Amino acid sequence: MTRKPGRRSTLVGTVAEEVLAYTAGEDRELDLALVEYDCIGTAAHAVALSRLPLTPPVMTPDETHRIIRELVEIIRSHRRGAFRISAADQDVHLAVERRLTRRLGEIGRKVHLGRSRNDQVALDMRLYLKDQLVSVAEQLCSTVRALLRQAARCRSIPMVGRTHMQPAMPSTVGLWLAAFAEALLDDGSDLQHVHTLADRCPLGAGAGYGVPLPLDRWLEARLLGFRQPVTNVLYAAAGRGRLEVRALGALAQVMLTLSGLAADLIIFSAPEFGYVTLPEEMCTGSSIMPQKRNPDVLELMRARAAALQASVQAAAGIVHGLPSGYHRDLQEIKPLVMRGFAVTGGSLKIAAAVVGKMTINREALRRAFQAPVFAADEAVELARQGLPFRDAYRRVKERLSGVESRRPEEAVSRRTGWGAPGNLHLEVLQAEARRLGQWARAERRRFHRAVSRLLGVQYPALESSG
Amino acid sequence: MTRKPGRRSTLVGTVAEEVLAYTAGEDRELDLALVEYDCIGTAAHAVALSRLPLTPPVMTPDETHRIIRELVEIIRSHRRGAFRISAADQDVHLAVERRLTRRLGEIGRKVHLGRSRNDQVALDMRLYLKDQLVSVAEQLCSTVRALLRQAARCRSIPMVGRTHMQPAMPSTVGLWLAAFAEALLDDGSDLQHVHTLADRCPLGAGAGYGVPLPLDRWLEARLLGFRQPVTNVLYAAAGRGRLEVRALGALAQVMLTLSGLAADLIIFSAPEFGYVTLPEEMCTGSSIMPQKRNPDVLELMRARAAALQASVQAAAGIVHGLPSGYHRDLQEIKPLVMRGFAVTGGSLKIAAAVVGKMTINREALRRAFQAPVFAADEAVELARQGLPFRDAYRRVKERLSGVESRRPEEAVSRRTGWGAPGNLHLEVLQAEARRLGQWARAERRRFHRAVSRLLGVQYPALESSG
Amino acid sequence: MTRKPGRRSTLVGTVAEEVLAYTAGEDRELDLALVEYDCIGTAAHAVALSRLPLTPPVMTPDETHRIIRELVEIIRSHRRGAFRISAADQDVHLAVERRLTRRLGEIGRKVHLGRSRNDQVALDMRLYLKDQLVSVAEQLCSTVRALLRQAARCRSIPMVGRTHMQPAMPSTVGLWLAAFAEALLDDGSDLQHVHTLADRCPLGAGAGYGVPLPLDRWLEARLLGFRQPVTNVLYAAAGRGRLEVRALGALAQVMLTLSGLAADLIIFSAPEFGYVTLPEEMCTGSSIMPQKRNPDVLELMRARAAALQASVQAAAGIVHGLPSGYHRDLQEIKPLVMRGFAVTGGSLKIAAAVVGKMTINREALRRAFQAPVFAADEAVELARQGLPFRDAYRRVKERLSGVESRRPEEAVSRRTGWGAPGNLHLEVLQAEARRLGQWARAERRRFHRAVSRLLGVQYPALESSG
Amino acid sequence: MTRKPGRRSTLVGTVAEEVLAYTAGEDRELDLALVEYDCIGTAAHAVALSRLPLTPPVMTPDETHRIIRELVEIIRSHRRGAFRISAADQDVHLAVERRLTRRLGEIGRKVHLGRSRNDQVALDMRLYLKDQLVSVAEQLCSTVRALLRQAARCRSIPMVGRTHMQPAMPSTVGLWLAAFAEALLDDGSDLQHVHTLADRCPLGAGAGYGVPLPLDRWLEARLLGFRQPVTNVLYAAAGRGRLEVRALGALAQVMLTLSGLAADLIIFSAPEFGYVTLPEEMCTGSSIMPQKRNPDVLELMRARAAALQASVQAAAGIVHGLPSGYHRDLQEIKPLVMRGFAVTGGSLKIAAAVVGKMTINREALRRAFQAPVFAADEAVELARQGLPFRDAYRRVKERLSGVESRRPEEAVSRRTGWGAPGNLHLEVLQAEARRLGQWARAERRRFHRAVSRLLGVQYPALESSG
Repeated sequence: MTRKPGRRSTLVGTVAEEVLAYTAGEDRELDLALVEYDCIGTAAHAVALSRLPLTPPVMTPDETHRIIRELVEIIRSHRRGAFRISAADQDVHLAVERRLTRRLGEIGRKVHLGRSRNDQVALDMRLYLKDQLVSVAEQLCSTVRALLRQAARCRSIPMVGRTHMQPAMPSTVGLWLAAFAEALLDDGSDLQHVHTLADRCPLGAGAGYGVPLPLDRWLEARLLGFRQPVTNVLYAAAGRGRLEVRALGALAQVMLTLSGLAADLIIFSAPEFGYVTLPEEMCTGSSIMPQKRNPDVLELMRARAAALQASVQAAAGIVHGLPSGYHRDLQEIKPLVMRGFAVTGGSLKIAAAVVGKMTINREALRRAFQAPVFAADEAVELARQGLPFRDAYRRVKERLSGVESRRPEEAVSRRTGWGAPGNLHLEVLQAEARRLGQWARAERRRFHRAVSRLLGVQYPALESSG
Repeated sequence: MTRKPGRRSTLVGTVAEEVLAYTAGEDRELDLALVEYDCIGTAAHAVALSRLPLTPPVMTPDETHRIIRELVEIIRSHRRGAFRISAADQDVHLAVERRLTRRLGEIGRKVHLGRSRNDQVALDMRLYLKDQLVSVAEQLCSTVRALLRQAARCRSIPMVGRTHMQPAMPSTVGLWLAAFAEALLDDGSDLQHVHTLADRCPLGAGAGYGVPLPLDRWLEARLLGFRQPVTNVLYAAAGRGRLEVRALGALAQVMLTLSGLAADLIIFSAPEFGYVTLPEEMCTGSSIMPQKRNPDVLELMRARAAALQASVQAAAGIVHGLPSGYHRDLQEIKPLVMRGFAVTGGSLKIAAAVVGKMTINREALRRAFQAPVFAADEAVELARQGLPFRDAYRRVKERLSGVESRRPEEAVSRRTGWGAPGNLHLEVLQAEARRLGQWARAERRRFHRAVSRLLGVQYPALESSG
Repeated sequence: MTRKPGRRSTLVGTVAEEVLAYTAGEDRELDLALVEYDCIGTAAHAVALSRLPLTPPVMTPDETHRIIRELVEIIRSHRRGAFRISAADQDVHLAVERRLTRRLGEIGRKVHLGRSRNDQVALDMRLYLKDQLVSVAEQLCSTVRALLRQAARCRSIPMVGRTHMQPAMPSTVGLWLAAFAEALLDDGSDLQHVHTLADRCPLGAGAGYGVPLPLDRWLEARLLGFRQPVTNVLYAAAGRGRLEVRALGALAQVMLTLSGLAADLIIFSAPEFGYVTLPEEMCTGSSIMPQKRNPDVLELMRARAAALQASVQAAAGIVHGLPSGYHRDLQEIKPLVMRGFAVTGGSLKIAAAVVGKMTINREALRRAFQAPVFAADEAVELARQGLPFRDAYRRVKERLSGVESRRPEEAVSRRTGWGAPGNLHLEVLQAEARRLGQWARAERRRFHRAVSRLLGVQYPALESSG
Repeated sequence: MTRKPGRRSTLVGTVAEEVLAYTAGEDRELDLALVEYDCIGTAAHAVALSRLPLTPPVMTPDETHRIIRELVEIIRSHRRGAFRISAADQDVHLAVERRLTRRLGEIGRKVHLGRSRNDQVALDMRLYLKDQLVSVAEQLCSTVRALLRQAARCRSIPMVGRTHMQPAMPSTVGLWLAAFAEALLDDGSDLQHVHTLADRCPLGAGAGYGVPLPLDRWLEARLLGFRQPVTNVLYAAAGRGRLEVRALGALAQVMLTLSGLAADLIIFSAPEFGYVTLPEEMCTGSSIMPQKRNPDVLELMRARAAALQASVQAAAGIVHGLPSGYHRDLQEIKPLVMRGFAVTGGSLKIAAAVVGKMTINREALRRAFQAPVFAADEAVELARQGLPFRDAYRRVKERLSGVESRRPEEAVSRRTGWGAPGNLHLEVLQAEARRLGQWARAERRRFHRAVSRLLGVQYPALESSG
């Protein structure tokens, strides 16, 4: 077949070069992150094809075996950096199919029976999401532990609690840091929730309308370690974008929490506060002002939180108003998701390092205690002596200059409600972090076991299990 | 006390009128939606005050009893439309306190001891969120049932399945509608997840730093039907905005699903498709073109989905980068959330009505079946006869005009994979809808029982339980 | 005609009540802001109808005269609060037509010839946008003047200039405040730009496809004070949403600037900085902490900036992906725009008041000058003596503790570059503000003159011009 | 100096590797797009240094000459792909300075006197923005011309005009396409407006607070082809992010227009409409359905419009609430802007190709004309005969089945209002496109001339001008 100049023949058609460039964009590069998942999915599909109750069989057990062996080779060559997705391939799916065909001939040309790139990419993304959600959850646990360790160390260091940035009440460094730990644990439960929704297998959906073959979708789901198949095949394909919106939403929550931590640390490390000193090796200098030690990492964390939040919007904006069935629009969600995981994982790691290494300056913290911060305590005391609170409030307000300074430690120790500065109950949060970590490890193990069984080699090591 | 002109004295200070106007905005009006929750929370707090192990007691059981009786009266007067939040009140919290003080004198002036508007509004919003999430979940169940009923009726009506808006494969009306049902059920699980996170009591957090009183936060949680208290008191206050972001995110997912349904129905009811006829009483006309029957409700649904998605962004943008502790910024999230629930509930209801009443036009659906839509079936058949799929694909592609038309019903009946057009398994989705409905009812009952016990009258009826 | 229960007959059809409720939403209330524009547009249309070269005339000059007189009455009754848009009216356009019909009978029933609600609302919104853009520009000028006045007063008060929130270089209060003035002036030029785009008349576009009548679109444009008509009638209708996105974008820029001012003032009024004291009557108190004076107005300004930015997203998200021609989706942009103008105008006003009334604390500002803030000056001096700057930088960096403190005033006075702290050139910004104000007044006058001529009475006073 | 493991010494400090990785991110790669601008700006700064009225001179004319010669070499080596920004460099500014120092020794170490990376990057971005805005404007002109050519060809091909996706009125293909041309021209005026705001020079602002040197900021502005300097030096640095928000907003408007075009073409190329056939080489196939020709490019265009809109939000979200002075947050806006220009330029190009090569199917367009589409014409005719329009409307509505079909050409020819289907006035839009193109060329020439003069070689060719 002769090709017109400027066009390129692919497995599935002939397209102008400029169109290929516009459509593929950075997609081929991003698809490299999906190679393993695509191979694993193809292995499961090959097994399902060999189990089809058809005569003649569309694929024999031996053919399936050879395909799986070759898929393991593809994963190995990918890990060596030797697997390529060419422009003509367009994407990881056709690249894997082409390689199988190049190596196995006719057998490779059989493997796309009963599949569509739509259900392949839906599968790859679900496997990717599950893996990444578990990874971020693990990183989140580390950051929570770093926060709780620092909170434990500083549990009784007094700190002025603020509202509206104005001094409000006596508090502690421990309360301040533990609040971020609890916030992150809630964010972790978002990650788990999205994982649960992702844990259903779309394979067998074809282009979204099923295939005229008696494919066993429960078998495919089990082989890949999914809890169950997505029921409706159209939703299996169309649900793709929505799952990513949820994942991005969960990541954005993590970053929102970190943006608050960053904001605090930026202000509290300004000399006017001086509550914390950031580790020197985490600060950057100025090209013109020799004295500068700038909290650039924290500013970038804050900015990346804003950008990630807008990614949720971008992904939802892409899905919004799309009619049923697959549309290429959904491809544009992939880079958002991949960047989202990278940014969130990286930020959690930096946050743990900053929290672990920063210095808490007791003196600066103490200096900030001025008498008015004890005004509410004084009002409460009058109330304990029998004055209605609103009257006590008014009496204190009228003679604010008369409010007496107190020992911060003493004021803090009176706050003994569950979770208050004098009664932090860090162990509750520690236990929650432990549970989240256990969940992550269990999910990871579950997936690795299923894949090891499927591929016949230890996964992820790829060593023969025999 | 003489007031300077243009300033207004409130329970907590004196503020310029223009500032009050700018700060309160529509907030007083919105706060009317919180009156019952504020009263319920105040009742629980009054109980907790009476249980404080202090001598002299800051509140006697009898005083608590009188407060609760008056709070019930406030709820009743609110339901009659007779409860007002004045400009000087600023918000529901001070309005309730003022009314208690007006009626009960000194006792009313006692009730704010150990509280802050920060933990009050955090509590009110959590109670509101729980209630509303349950309501939307119930409405969502109705819409799912409407979709499943229509899907069951049309389970074997053939419909061209599309990808990229182009005819793709034989499918059915049943598959199409059931996909939305499953999507909504996933959205419902988001609602449940947010409810779980909301189901922790912030009361006793004060301004976010606890209070110098031995308040029993577990008691308060139990009285109000919460699973447990938020642990960290600072997070109890600061977590407020984040919970709303999550709630809005969950609502936006529901609307995203509905926006897809709307998009389909708008296109499929254009005469060129003619697949569905929308119920006449749900269409609006044109002021100039007498023939028009426009799907305005669906267009508004689609637009409101976009606007609600941007509300997630707005709420997250408000929280982003805020230092620790309460900031007035958070107030601006309230209208977003309230509008979000109203829009989502209303849209689910309209969607159920449209789906239930629309007419499915079998003839138009059948006319859309042209031979090429069977091309993949032909390729699969060649593959079943032994040709590798990729070769079969190519052979069919080269002679596309030779693809033969088939009976759609027959083509559909061959798609027998789990959840495929020939094997919908609607009962799986029906069961899931039932479980969601049961959960919603159970949660509602749990809350009503706790409140009835707390107020000493049947809630929500407010009839004496004796 | 008998109506089925639950349906409502309107000028243009019969619709279910619940549908009317869902479609109209708050739209009827919002449409009250458009009554005058709708009447003015109808007046221009009535003139154009009377000038049609048709026999018999579709409208006589006398009929036009009576219509215009009645339209003036509608405006008057609207200003008294007596004009109503009923549920059956659906919107301002049908309400005005119904009133004309009620008063003028057959003449009223003639007026919709050659129009559509699509071009009516497009016209109303353009007139509304032009008016509001001019108003916001005027308010912006006031705020700029308040900033420049305060900057002039404080032009030589030293202030530590910061980067990354860390002390960076000697600067002044004057520089700091004048930066916001220049930012707002750029924002003002955005407002002008949008006004220029809005200043083209959509009338005569009908439903977006023109009308089978020789309507003189240039005449209509001139009568209404527009520079020219939109050329393409389809774009005249479809351009509607995009113009609003632009207007919201311009407003969001203003608010972005104000959010920065708010952020500065919130931090600088914290006692650790104490640079500024906010006017007491603009601060709000706490319900529990008697000592609090909180910058709530500034926090709300910051939050509303975030929400307004999300409105740009909402509006663009609504327009995104819409096929050609009018869709009801566009209605949902109206509340976003109206809230946007209200928020921006109100915030500019509050900002001017805060800036005008705040107290600048010279002592606190001076205390913040520590020796390292002069490090760059020292390096520059070494460079002036012949050392290459990078070497000078390094030498200073290596002996940071040796940097000597200087007199801030002296350091500032050496910064004499155009627009630097020692050479502010406020007169440049003052001149720019003056030009913007002149533009606003000229545009307002131009519109009022055109309307006065059209209605035959002084507009906006509505007094007879004779 | 010995480096601790895991830390890296840079020109301006020593930072942990992981921090460098997190802070630099993809920034070094992106900065390659700024190399030429950075060199040009450095050349202007070197001239300004040599003109400082200081004794001894901080830089001699000969030194400036040598620096400029070396800067030209850097540009050349960059164009050959041989210029590197190392991790230790962190960014383009330090990379250029390091190279100058390596080649010119002491002279290179002089060049940063009186500058900061803050004003350097602000300058680079303004030069970049101006260049890119001009390029996109030129591409936009091409696309407008393609639309107008196709509109002229199809000016009298009838097409059903739609509202709410329902057939509304007789129209033409010409009107439909010309509407996009006019929309793009408005978008073009946004580009010009942002260019005007960008056309002010920030150089000399230093870190935002000026420098203690009598730098001539007007000279620098003139050397670089700017209209004038930004007045306030703090705004010169802080305005950076806001300008990018505006640029992204303008690009998002272009993409919003293209998203509408894409939406139309996707629907109109579905077989049920069949109005247009997309050029085959611009369609992609399916991996499973041999018959598919999918409009992937258009779907990606639509999706990228949504993502770009969210980038506006991301950029604004990053700027929102930042206190005065530079923050590293702003760096995160750079990738958004660079992607934004690439996406918009590429999409405009694809849009021009699709519009130029698509086939218009007259028959399919004609088939869509059903009698009801003439209902409004019938009502208008009754009105022309003397019946009030609202009565005519009602009469036609009551006997809709009686509406007679007409010749579409004839119906269209009656729409002769300015810009209506029968009177398109394409020449108005052609003239506007011409003016925009002339502006773009003039701006480009103005910049090239200034740079040529500054560098002493023809720019951009870099050939010696002698």
